[in-house]
Amino acid sequence: MESISGGVCAAKGFKAYGVHCGIRKNKTKEDLALVVADCPCSAAAVYTTNKVKGAPITVTRAHLADGKAQAIVCNSGNANTCNADGVAKAEEMCRLVERHTGVKAEDVIVASTGVIGQILPIQPIVSGMPALAAGLSAKGNTIAARAIMTTDTRVKEYARKCEIGGYTVTVGGMAKGSGMIHPNMATLLAFVTTDAAISPKMLDAALKDAVEDTLNMVSIDGDTSTNDMLTVMASGMSGMPEITREGEQYSAFKSALTAVLEDISKAIAADGEGATKLLECSVEGAPDKQTAKKIAKSVVCSSLLKAAIFAADANWGRILCAIGYAEAEFDIDKVDVDIVSDAGAVAVCRGGNGVDFDETAAKRVLLEDEIRICVNCNSGDGKAVAWGCDLTYEYVKINADYRT
Amino acid sequence: MESISGGVCAAKGFKAYGVHCGIRKNKTKEDLALVVADCPCSAAAVYTTNKVKGAPITVTRAHLADGKAQAIVCNSGNANTCNADGVAKAEEMCRLVERHTGVKAEDVIVASTGVIGQILPIQPIVSGMPALAAGLSAKGNTIAARAIMTTDTRVKEYARKCEIGGYTVTVGGMAKGSGMIHPNMATLLAFVTTDAAISPKMLDAALKDAVEDTLNMVSIDGDTSTNDMLTVMASGMSGMPEITREGEQYSAFKSALTAVLEDISKAIAADGEGATKLLECSVEGAPDKQTAKKIAKSVVCSSLLKAAIFAADANWGRILCAIGYAEAEFDIDKVDVDIVSDAGAVAVCRGGNGVDFDETAAKRVLLEDEIRICVNCNSGDGKAVAWGCDLTYEYVKINADYRT
Repeated sequence: MESISGGVCAAKGFKAYGVHCGIRKNKTKEDLALVVADCPCSAAAVYTTNKVKGAPITVTRAHLADGKAQAIVCNSGNANTCNADGVAKAEEMCRLVERHTGVKAEDVIVASTGVIGQILPIQPIVSGMPALAAGLSAKGNTIAARAIMTTDTRVKEYARKCEIGGYTVTVGGMAKGSGMIHPNMATLLAFVTTDAAISPKMLDAALKDAVEDTLNMVSIDGDTSTNDMLTVMASGMSGMPEITREGEQYSAFKSALTAVLEDISKAIAADGEGATKLLECSVEGAPDKQTAKKIAKSVVCSSLLKAAIFAADANWGRILCAIGYAEAEFDIDKVDVDIVSDAGAVAVCRGGNGVDFDETAAKRVLLEDEIRICVNCNSGDGKAVAWGCDLTYEYVKINADYRT
Repeated sequence: MESISGGVCAAKGFKAYGVHCGIRKNKTKEDLALVVADCPCSAAAVYTTNKVKGAPITVTRAHLADGKAQAIVCNSGNANTCNADGVAKAEEMCRLVERHTGVKAEDVIVASTGVIGQILPIQPIVSGMPALAAGLSAKGNTIAARAIMTTDTRVKEYARKCEIGGYTVTVGGMAKGSGMIHPNMATLLAFVTTDAAISPKMLDAALKDAVEDTLNMVSIDGDTSTNDMLTVMASGMSGMPEITREGEQYSAFKSALTAVLEDISKAIAADGEGATKLLECSVEGAPDKQTAKKIAKSVVCSSLLKAAIFAADANWGRILCAIGYAEAEFDIDKVDVDIVSDAGAVAVCRGGNGVDFDETAAKRVLLEDEIRICVNCNSGDGKAVAWGCDLTYEYVKINADYRT
């Protein structure tokens, strides 16, 4: 499945743009993004499980109830969450999109990301919308992706091209997310577009499946955000006949969607607040898949291991400790652990006990940018992969300074 | 209930001491502690729920099966965990205590704390034991408490005196713990002694109850250690008749035990690795106690809130976010939050929404050393308190450097 450029505009039928409207003080950083489809799309979404839900989630959920959407508007710099007037402001954002693009307000997906609990100023959005709508183009993907960033240091946009039943189908997306990331059923902000033709019901099923093995396996800091949202819009403009049930074409589409979401997952983990390294934990040989997932997530969530990875220290006892407190049933005395990177592999644990290893070789492996912890439970065929990052001074600095 | 000095030697019938035997390279820091009772004691313990269990836990559990113990031996600098010969080494430590004190090996509680997965050198313990046993005294409590410390910056020992049925009863204890702290059913290392007379069964019941509201409500970094252990030994030397069932005397003893464990809990949270502030979250008005506990723990575990507290930043949205992802059922729209310290109180949230507050006043409140987050769910009478600390550069530094 080929990786291509174009992000959220890679699929046929989508235009995007971003502007600085003034929600953020820093004028060099865009803070308002718009994505518009040429036609009404099948749409699906997953949302945060946090009880505190941003007002935009309430509004988006209502707008997607009919499985249709045609535009996305998203601001950064303010989460529009825990404000008494939040829902009214989110609805106002959708009406502004309608006024300037013609897309009906109830077909707009609305999202906000930034500080929680500060009143969202609507005036900058009112002022910025005309230029935002006027700038929409099939090349506006990167500026839109930049406009949704908060503490992200890198633009996150990906796209994949595949063949489904003789038609070329593209799935692309953009995301933001760097801190307050510990998705559960949904995640951060990610907007995926595709020119596949698929019914809202099948799109929803594919999304729910794909997110379980991708974004729901990422953790930066264990904090599940109030505004997490992942949406997908399918324009059908590839020309293919609509997917309305499971089968080969559905599977092919789900694979493409999963690939893009995995690209996004890794990018988000690698760009975790303050991160210097991508930490991946792959578990195999677990009694079942759920157990493998719990172990993999427990490892990438351990603050102690994450600090050791920052220091390139092969403190494998912390890995075994994190495996040991995963809330799952398995035989710890059968567990093997290897630390792997582009510089090689080091076996550090066999059957639950430490093995002698060369500290110099281990250091060399751990100095790479992408570190993989490979766990084999030797107890079945359950597999899973989770992604996280190291814990650094910079994480503390960013989050001690974020609001002020 | 009066706080008194004397720690683990405050109660009648206990002697203690500590030496540097050579497990740690730093010769100015004791690394081997011994506590011996004048007579066999009723004893009880709770242990880590981590599947990876230190060898000392296996041995201690066997020794306490009969509800009796008479001594504690504990080394720091090495956890004796994930080593093939760990159990044999832990048993050897108990035999060394028998040889030099006369207490039977099977009446010895053995514990180890430090790096996981490195072979425990037994020779330093063999060499150090004669001086350790010779030094035992009723004034050796502080040197023993120092010998069990790892990254702790402060000695943690507390004692309380109370009256039970006309007899003066003392409960005292020492603890270590600073990182890898997220107790679950047991915690870190804490050794409590008392001259109360109480049957092993009732002692066990009192301990299990007391730990639920104290040490199990502490979290430094979300990592549950492999070697957590809390033991209590009751010498009966206060002269009181033995407690063998629930009633007034049992309740009085449990209150004293709970008070000492709460002293220890706060001390451990305040001395969390790299911590500059004690963070306490008290929840009231929850539908039930379990819900209150989940909310309180969720708040003190949030990395983002902990970083904000370090910066004295009233980023209350992070508090509400952490309340929102607590895995419990309650109405988020009724939640009130206040931030309180010795410098005053600031209301930041009413009914799930932010309220205007004076940022200068909030800063003043947050610059204190002990910060209390007061949550009222306005939905019942469930209450709980949890303790944690701020997240600082120093936490990362300590844990990036710990092993090397």
